[in-house]
Amino acid sequence: MKELQERIRKEGKVLPGNIIKVDGFLNHRVDTHLMEAIAREFEKYFDVGGITMVLTAEASGIALATICAQEYNVPMVFAKKAKSDNIEGGLYRSEVFSYTYKKKVTQILSKEWMGPDDRVLIIDDFMANGEAVRGLCDLVSQAGATLVGVGIAVEKGFQGGGDRLRASNINYHALAVIDRVDGDTIVFRD
Amino acid sequence: MKELQERIRKEGKVLPGNIIKVDGFLNHRVDTHLMEAIAREFEKYFDVGGITMVLTAEASGIALATICAQEYNVPMVFAKKAKSDNIEGGLYRSEVFSYTYKKKVTQILSKEWMGPDDRVLIIDDFMANGEAVRGLCDLVSQAGATLVGVGIAVEKGFQGGGDRLRASNINYHALAVIDRVDGDTIVFRD
Repeated sequence: MKELQERIRKEGKVLPGNIIKVDGFLNHRVDTHLMEAIAREFEKYFDVGGITMVLTAEASGIALATICAQEYNVPMVFAKKAKSDNIEGGLYRSEVFSYTYKKKVTQILSKEWMGPDDRVLIIDDFMANGEAVRGLCDLVSQAGATLVGVGIAVEKGFQGGGDRLRASNINYHALAVIDRVDGDTIVFRD
Repeated sequence: MKELQERIRKEGKVLPGNIIKVDGFLNHRVDTHLMEAIAREFEKYFDVGGITMVLTAEASGIALATICAQEYNVPMVFAKKAKSDNIEGGLYRSEVFSYTYKKKVTQILSKEWMGPDDRVLIIDDFMANGEAVRGLCDLVSQAGATLVGVGIAVEKGFQGGGDRLRASNINYHALAVIDRVDGDTIVFRD
Protein backbone atom coordinates (compact mmCIF):
# COMPACT_ATOMS: atom_id res chain seq x y z
CA MET A 1 0.00 0.00 0.00
CA LYS A 2 1.78 3.07 -1.33
CA GLU A 3 0.31 5.64 1.07
CA LEU A 4 1.32 3.61 4.11
CA GLN A 5 4.84 2.92 2.80
CA GLU A 6 5.31 6.63 2.12
CA ARG A 7 4.26 7.55 5.65
CA ILE A 8 6.67 4.98 7.08
CA ARG A 9 9.50 6.25 4.87
CA LYS A 10 8.79 9.88 5.74
CA GLU A 11 7.91 9.63 9.44
CA GLY A 12 9.25 6.27 10.63
CA LYS A 13 12.41 6.19 12.72
CA VAL A 14 14.93 3.40 13.15
CA LEU A 15 16.17 2.89 16.70
CA PRO A 16 18.99 0.65 17.95
CA GLY A 17 17.99 -3.02 18.09
CA ASN A 18 16.06 -2.89 14.79
CA ILE A 19 13.15 -1.15 16.48
CA ILE A 20 11.11 0.71 13.90
CA LYS A 21 9.09 3.51 15.41
CA VAL A 22 5.91 4.52 13.62
CA ASP A 23 4.28 6.06 16.63
CA GLY A 24 3.46 9.40 15.03
CA PHE A 25 0.59 7.97 12.99
CA LEU A 26 0.03 4.31 13.91
CA ASN A 27 0.49 3.35 17.53
CA HIS A 28 0.88 6.25 19.95
CA ARG A 29 -0.55 9.17 18.01
CA VAL A 30 -3.04 7.73 15.52
CA ASP A 31 -4.09 9.25 12.18
CA THR A 32 -7.67 8.02 11.90
CA HIS A 33 -7.93 8.98 8.22
CA LEU A 34 -4.95 6.77 7.41
CA MET A 35 -6.69 4.00 9.43
CA GLU A 36 -9.74 4.44 7.17
CA ALA A 37 -7.57 4.07 4.07
CA ILE A 38 -5.99 0.93 5.53
CA ALA A 39 -9.44 -0.50 6.36
CA ARG A 40 -10.55 0.04 2.75
CA GLU A 41 -7.33 -1.51 1.42
CA PHE A 42 -7.93 -4.71 3.43
CA GLU A 43 -11.25 -5.10 1.60
CA LYS A 44 -9.24 -6.00 -1.52
CA TYR A 45 -7.85 -9.09 0.23
CA PHE A 46 -10.59 -10.26 2.59
CA ASP A 47 -14.28 -10.98 2.08
CA VAL A 48 -15.36 -8.58 4.82
CA GLY A 49 -19.03 -9.02 3.91
CA GLY A 50 -18.83 -12.54 5.34
CA ILE A 51 -17.26 -11.78 8.72
CA THR A 52 -19.03 -11.44 12.07
CA MET A 53 -16.26 -9.64 13.96
CA VAL A 54 -12.84 -8.05 13.86
CA LEU A 55 -10.44 -9.41 16.51
CA THR A 56 -7.28 -7.72 17.74
CA ALA A 57 -4.94 -7.69 20.73
CA GLU A 58 -4.60 -5.04 23.43
CA ALA A 59 -3.38 -2.37 23.15
CA SER A 60 -2.02 -0.78 20.02
CA GLY A 61 -4.12 -2.83 17.59
CA ILE A 62 -7.34 -1.41 19.01
CA ALA A 63 -7.39 1.87 17.06
CA LEU A 64 -6.98 0.27 13.63
CA ALA A 65 -9.29 -2.64 14.46
CA THR A 66 -11.99 -0.20 15.60
CA ILE A 67 -11.92 1.70 12.32
CA CYS A 68 -11.94 -1.59 10.37
CA ALA A 69 -14.93 -2.90 12.35
CA GLN A 70 -16.77 0.37 11.74
CA GLU A 71 -16.05 0.14 7.99
CA TYR A 72 -17.16 -3.52 7.81
CA ASN A 73 -20.19 -3.00 10.04
CA VAL A 74 -19.32 -5.63 12.66
CA PRO A 75 -18.24 -5.49 16.33
CA MET A 76 -14.58 -5.10 17.29
CA VAL A 77 -13.36 -7.49 19.98
CA PHE A 78 -9.96 -7.20 21.62
CA ALA A 79 -8.15 -9.90 23.55
CA LYS A 80 -7.01 -8.51 26.88
CA LYS A 81 -3.76 -9.04 28.70
CA ALA A 82 -4.66 -11.15 31.74
CA LYS A 83 -4.75 -9.34 35.10
CA SER A 84 -7.93 -7.35 35.17
CA ASP A 85 -10.50 -8.54 37.68
CA ASN A 86 -13.52 -7.32 35.74
CA ILE A 87 -14.12 -10.30 33.49
CA GLU A 88 -16.13 -13.07 35.07
CA GLY A 89 -16.27 -16.74 34.28
CA GLY A 90 -15.46 -18.56 31.06
CA LEU A 91 -12.41 -17.39 29.19
CA TYR A 92 -10.31 -18.54 26.29
CA ARG A 93 -6.61 -18.12 27.07
CA SER A 94 -3.42 -18.17 25.05
CA GLU A 95 0.18 -17.66 26.11
CA VAL A 96 2.43 -15.56 23.90
CA PHE A 97 5.90 -14.07 24.25
CA SER A 98 5.81 -10.31 23.84
CA TYR A 99 8.76 -8.90 21.89
CA THR A 100 7.86 -5.39 23.09
CA TYR A 101 7.65 -6.31 26.77
CA LYS A 102 10.27 -9.10 26.72
CA LYS A 103 8.07 -11.42 28.74
CA LYS A 104 5.24 -13.92 28.55
CA VAL A 105 1.78 -12.41 28.25
CA THR A 106 -1.52 -14.24 28.62
CA GLN A 107 -4.21 -13.12 26.19
CA ILE A 108 -7.75 -13.66 27.45
CA LEU A 109 -11.08 -13.48 25.68
CA SER A 110 -14.50 -13.94 27.22
CA LYS A 111 -16.32 -16.98 25.79
CA GLU A 112 -19.41 -14.80 25.57
CA TRP A 113 -18.00 -12.85 22.64
CA MET A 114 -16.83 -15.61 20.30
CA GLY A 115 -18.33 -18.98 19.37
CA PRO A 116 -18.53 -21.64 16.65
CA ASP A 117 -20.77 -19.51 14.42
CA ASP A 118 -18.32 -16.64 14.25
CA ARG A 119 -16.28 -15.77 11.17
CA VAL A 120 -13.31 -13.80 12.39
CA LEU A 121 -10.94 -11.37 10.70
CA ILE A 122 -7.83 -10.72 12.80
CA ILE A 123 -6.39 -7.21 12.40
CA ASP A 124 -3.25 -5.80 13.99
CA ASP A 125 -1.20 -2.69 13.41
CA PHE A 126 2.24 -4.24 13.58
CA MET A 127 3.82 -7.67 13.39
CA ALA A 128 7.37 -8.72 14.23
CA ASN A 129 7.76 -12.35 15.28
CA GLY A 130 4.02 -12.91 15.02
CA GLU A 131 3.46 -14.07 18.60
CA ALA A 132 0.43 -11.84 19.23
CA VAL A 133 -1.23 -13.08 16.04
CA ARG A 134 -0.37 -16.70 16.87
CA GLY A 135 -2.16 -16.23 20.19
CA LEU A 136 -5.20 -14.67 18.52
CA CYS A 137 -5.40 -17.55 16.00
CA ASP A 138 -5.29 -19.91 18.96
CA LEU A 139 -8.24 -18.09 20.61
CA VAL A 140 -10.25 -18.40 17.37
CA SER A 141 -9.45 -22.09 17.26
CA GLN A 142 -10.45 -22.61 20.93
CA ALA A 143 -13.81 -20.99 20.15
CA GLY A 144 -14.37 -23.32 17.19
CA ALA A 145 -14.83 -20.19 15.09
CA THR A 146 -13.75 -19.76 11.47
CA LEU A 147 -10.64 -17.71 10.77
CA VAL A 148 -11.36 -15.70 7.62
CA GLY A 149 -7.96 -14.05 7.48
CA VAL A 150 -5.21 -12.05 9.14
CA GLY A 151 -4.57 -8.47 8.07
CA ILE A 152 -1.53 -6.53 9.30
CA ALA A 153 -0.66 -2.92 8.53
CA VAL A 154 3.13 -3.07 9.01
CA GLU A 155 5.15 -6.29 9.04
CA LYS A 156 8.80 -6.50 10.02
CA GLY A 157 9.58 -9.05 7.32
CA PHE A 158 12.97 -9.98 8.75
CA GLN A 159 11.55 -11.34 12.00
CA GLY A 160 9.80 -14.35 10.55
CA GLY A 161 6.21 -13.94 11.73
CA GLY A 162 4.83 -13.06 8.30
CA ASP A 163 6.78 -15.75 6.47
CA ARG A 164 5.40 -18.42 8.82
CA LEU A 165 1.86 -17.20 8.12
CA ARG A 166 2.46 -17.11 4.33
CA ALA A 167 3.68 -20.71 4.55
CA SER A 168 0.46 -21.75 6.32
CA ASN A 169 -2.96 -22.02 4.71
CA ILE A 170 -4.18 -18.85 6.43
CA ASN A 171 -5.31 -15.97 4.21
CA TYR A 172 -2.67 -13.52 5.37
CA HIS A 173 -1.91 -10.07 4.05
CA ALA A 174 0.35 -7.26 5.25
CA LEU A 175 0.10 -3.85 3.60
CA ALA A 176 3.73 -2.83 4.14
CA VAL A 177 6.47 -5.42 4.62
CA ILE A 178 9.78 -4.03 5.82
CA ASP A 179 12.48 -6.30 4.44
CA ARG A 180 15.50 -4.74 6.04
CA VAL A 181 16.99 -1.59 7.42
CA ASP A 182 20.11 -0.11 5.76
CA GLY A 183 21.41 2.43 8.24
CA ASP A 184 18.54 4.88 8.52
CA THR A 185 16.84 3.68 5.35
CA ILE A 186 13.81 1.41 5.56
CA VAL A 187 13.65 -1.00 2.62
CA PHE A 188 10.29 -2.55 1.68
CA ARG A 189 9.67 -5.95 0.14
CA ASP A 190 8.00 -5.75 -3.31
CA MET B 1 -27.67 9.99 27.05
CA LYS B 2 -30.71 7.78 26.74
CA GLU B 3 -29.34 5.27 24.23
CA LEU B 4 -26.26 4.58 26.36
CA GLN B 5 -28.27 4.26 29.60
CA GLU B 6 -30.62 1.80 27.91
CA ARG B 7 -27.72 -0.34 26.71
CA ILE B 8 -26.24 -0.36 30.22
CA ARG B 9 -29.61 -1.27 31.75
CA LYS B 10 -30.24 -4.02 29.19
CA GLU B 11 -26.77 -5.52 28.81
CA GLY B 12 -24.77 -4.39 31.84
CA LYS B 13 -24.05 -6.86 34.62
CA VAL B 14 -23.38 -6.22 38.27
CA LEU B 15 -20.62 -8.35 39.78
CA PRO B 16 -19.59 -8.69 43.44
CA GLY B 17 -17.53 -5.73 44.67
CA ASN B 18 -19.63 -3.16 42.81
CA ILE B 19 -17.99 -4.06 39.50
CA ILE B 20 -20.26 -3.06 36.64
CA LYS B 21 -19.52 -5.00 33.49
CA VAL B 22 -20.34 -3.35 30.18
CA ASP B 23 -17.95 -5.40 28.14
CA GLY B 24 -20.48 -6.52 25.53
CA PHE B 25 -20.55 -3.12 23.83
CA LEU B 26 -18.00 -0.78 25.45
CA ASN B 27 -14.72 -2.30 26.55
CA HIS B 28 -14.11 -5.87 25.39
CA ARG B 29 -16.50 -6.25 22.49
CA VAL B 30 -17.08 -2.76 21.07
CA ASP B 31 -20.15 -1.52 19.18
CA THR B 32 -18.62 1.07 16.87
CA HIS B 33 -22.01 2.55 15.93
CA LEU B 34 -22.73 3.27 19.59
CA MET B 35 -19.26 4.87 19.79
CA GLU B 36 -20.26 7.14 16.88
CA ALA B 37 -23.43 8.16 18.72
CA ILE B 38 -21.39 8.90 21.85
CA ALA B 39 -18.89 10.96 19.82
CA ARG B 40 -21.73 13.06 18.41
CA GLU B 41 -23.26 13.47 21.88
CA PHE B 42 -19.99 14.88 23.26
CA GLU B 43 -20.21 17.63 20.62
CA LYS B 44 -23.09 19.12 22.63
CA TYR B 45 -20.78 19.71 25.58
CA PHE B 46 -17.35 20.45 24.08
CA ASP B 47 -16.20 22.86 21.39
CA VAL B 48 -14.60 20.12 19.32
CA GLY B 49 -13.91 22.54 16.46
CA GLY B 50 -11.26 24.15 18.65
CA ILE B 51 -9.30 21.06 19.72
CA THR B 52 -6.05 19.74 18.24
CA MET B 53 -6.22 16.20 19.64
CA VAL B 54 -8.19 13.63 21.60
CA LEU B 55 -6.22 12.09 24.48
CA THR B 56 -7.04 8.81 26.23
CA ALA B 57 -5.37 6.12 28.32
CA GLU B 58 -4.37 2.60 27.28
CA ALA B 59 -6.20 0.31 26.78
CA SER B 60 -9.98 0.32 26.85
CA GLY B 61 -10.39 4.05 26.14
CA ILE B 62 -8.71 3.68 22.76
CA ALA B 63 -11.74 2.45 20.80
CA LEU B 64 -14.03 5.32 21.85
CA ALA B 65 -11.27 7.92 21.57
CA THR B 66 -10.46 6.73 18.04
CA ILE B 67 -14.04 7.18 16.86
CA CYS B 68 -14.22 10.61 18.58
CA ALA B 69 -10.97 11.73 16.91
CA GLN B 70 -12.26 10.55 13.55
CA GLU B 71 -15.52 12.49 14.06
CA TYR B 72 -13.69 15.67 15.18
CA ASN B 73 -11.03 15.39 12.49
CA VAL B 74 -8.00 15.42 14.82
CA PRO B 75 -5.39 12.81 15.83
CA MET B 76 -6.03 10.40 18.70
CA VAL B 77 -3.18 10.07 21.18
CA PHE B 78 -3.12 7.47 23.93
CA ALA B 79 -0.95 7.52 27.03
CA LYS B 80 0.81 4.19 27.39
CA LYS B 81 1.44 2.14 30.47
CA ALA B 82 5.20 2.35 31.08
CA LYS B 83 7.23 -0.75 30.18
CA SER B 84 7.51 -0.79 26.44
CA ASP B 85 11.02 -0.21 25.08
CA ASN B 86 9.90 1.32 21.80
CA ILE B 87 9.55 4.94 22.83
CA GLU B 88 12.77 6.92 22.77
CA GLY B 89 13.76 10.04 24.62
CA GLY B 90 11.59 12.68 26.18
CA LEU B 91 8.48 11.56 27.97
CA TYR B 92 5.84 13.08 30.18
CA ARG B 93 5.03 10.73 33.06
CA SER B 94 2.28 10.49 35.63
CA GLU B 95 1.69 7.97 38.40
CA VAL B 96 -1.84 6.71 38.99
CA PHE B 97 -3.39 3.95 41.04
CA SER B 98 -5.35 1.54 38.86
CA TYR B 99 -8.60 0.35 40.43
CA THR B 100 -8.82 -2.41 37.81
CA TYR B 101 -5.29 -3.72 38.34
CA LYS B 102 -5.01 -2.85 42.06
CA LYS B 103 -1.57 -1.35 41.63
CA LYS B 104 0.35 1.76 40.66
CA VAL B 105 0.62 2.35 36.93
CA THR B 106 2.87 4.89 35.23
CA GLN B 107 1.30 6.61 32.24
CA ILE B 108 3.79 7.85 29.67
CA LEU B 109 3.40 10.15 26.70
CA SER B 110 6.06 11.13 24.20
CA LYS B 111 6.81 14.87 24.30
CA GLU B 112 6.76 14.80 20.51
CA TRP B 113 2.98 14.44 20.45
CA MET B 114 1.83 17.16 22.83
CA GLY B 115 3.07 20.71 23.39
CA PRO B 116 2.04 24.19 24.55
CA ASP B 117 0.03 24.91 21.39
CA ASP B 118 -2.21 21.89 21.83
CA ARG B 119 -5.85 22.10 22.88
CA VAL B 120 -6.74 18.71 24.31
CA LEU B 121 -10.02 16.90 24.83
CA ILE B 122 -9.63 13.92 27.18
CA ILE B 123 -11.98 11.03 26.41
CA ASP B 124 -12.37 7.78 28.32
CA ASP B 125 -14.91 4.98 28.26
CA PHE B 126 -15.31 4.49 31.98
CA MET B 127 -14.49 6.33 35.19
CA ALA B 128 -14.56 5.07 38.78
CA ASN B 129 -12.22 6.89 41.16
CA GLY B 130 -10.91 9.05 38.34
CA GLU B 131 -7.25 8.13 38.72
CA ALA B 132 -6.65 7.53 35.00
CA VAL B 133 -8.18 10.91 34.14
CA ARG B 134 -6.21 12.64 36.89
CA GLY B 135 -3.04 11.23 35.33
CA LEU B 136 -4.07 12.40 31.87
CA CYS B 137 -4.82 15.93 33.15
CA ASP B 138 -1.37 15.91 34.71
CA LEU B 139 0.22 14.99 31.35
CA VAL B 140 -1.64 17.88 29.68
CA SER B 141 -0.39 20.22 32.38
CA GLN B 142 3.22 18.99 32.04
CA ALA B 143 3.02 19.73 28.31
CA GLY B 144 1.77 23.25 28.98
CA ALA B 145 -1.18 22.42 26.73
CA THR B 146 -4.75 23.65 27.20
CA LEU B 147 -7.30 21.23 28.61
CA VAL B 148 -10.55 21.87 26.73
CA GLY B 149 -12.55 19.28 28.63
CA VAL B 150 -13.00 15.75 29.89
CA GLY B 151 -15.68 13.50 28.38
CA ILE B 152 -16.55 10.13 29.89
CA ALA B 153 -19.06 7.62 28.57
CA VAL B 154 -19.91 5.82 31.83
CA GLU B 155 -19.18 7.20 35.31
CA LYS B 156 -19.54 5.20 38.51
CA GLY B 157 -20.93 8.17 40.44
CA PHE B 158 -20.50 6.54 43.84
CA GLN B 159 -16.72 6.33 43.56
CA GLY B 160 -16.00 10.03 43.71
CA GLY B 161 -13.95 10.66 40.57
CA GLY B 162 -16.72 12.54 38.75
CA ASP B 163 -17.73 14.60 41.77
CA ARG B 164 -14.15 15.80 42.21
CA LEU B 165 -14.04 16.88 38.57
CA ARG B 166 -17.42 18.64 38.82
CA ALA B 167 -16.10 20.54 41.85
CA SER B 168 -13.06 21.70 39.85
CA ASN B 169 -13.08 24.28 37.06
CA ILE B 170 -12.64 21.62 34.38
CA ASN B 171 -15.35 21.31 31.71
CA TYR B 172 -16.36 17.77 32.60
CA HIS B 173 -19.23 15.72 31.26
CA ALA B 174 -20.24 12.06 31.65
CA LEU B 175 -23.02 10.66 29.46
CA ALA B 176 -24.27 8.07 31.94
CA VAL B 177 -23.68 8.46 35.68
CA ILE B 178 -24.44 5.36 37.72
CA ASP B 179 -25.54 6.55 41.15
CA ARG B 180 -25.92 3.23 42.88
CA VAL B 181 -26.67 -0.44 42.44
CA ASP B 182 -29.77 -1.92 44.12
CA GLY B 183 -29.27 -5.66 43.95
CA ASP B 184 -29.10 -6.28 40.22
CA THR B 185 -30.62 -2.93 39.29
CA ILE B 186 -28.41 -0.12 38.05
CA VAL B 187 -29.75 3.30 39.10
CA PHE B 188 -28.70 6.38 37.12
CA ARG B 189 -28.28 9.94 38.40
CA ASP B 190 -30.64 12.40 36.73
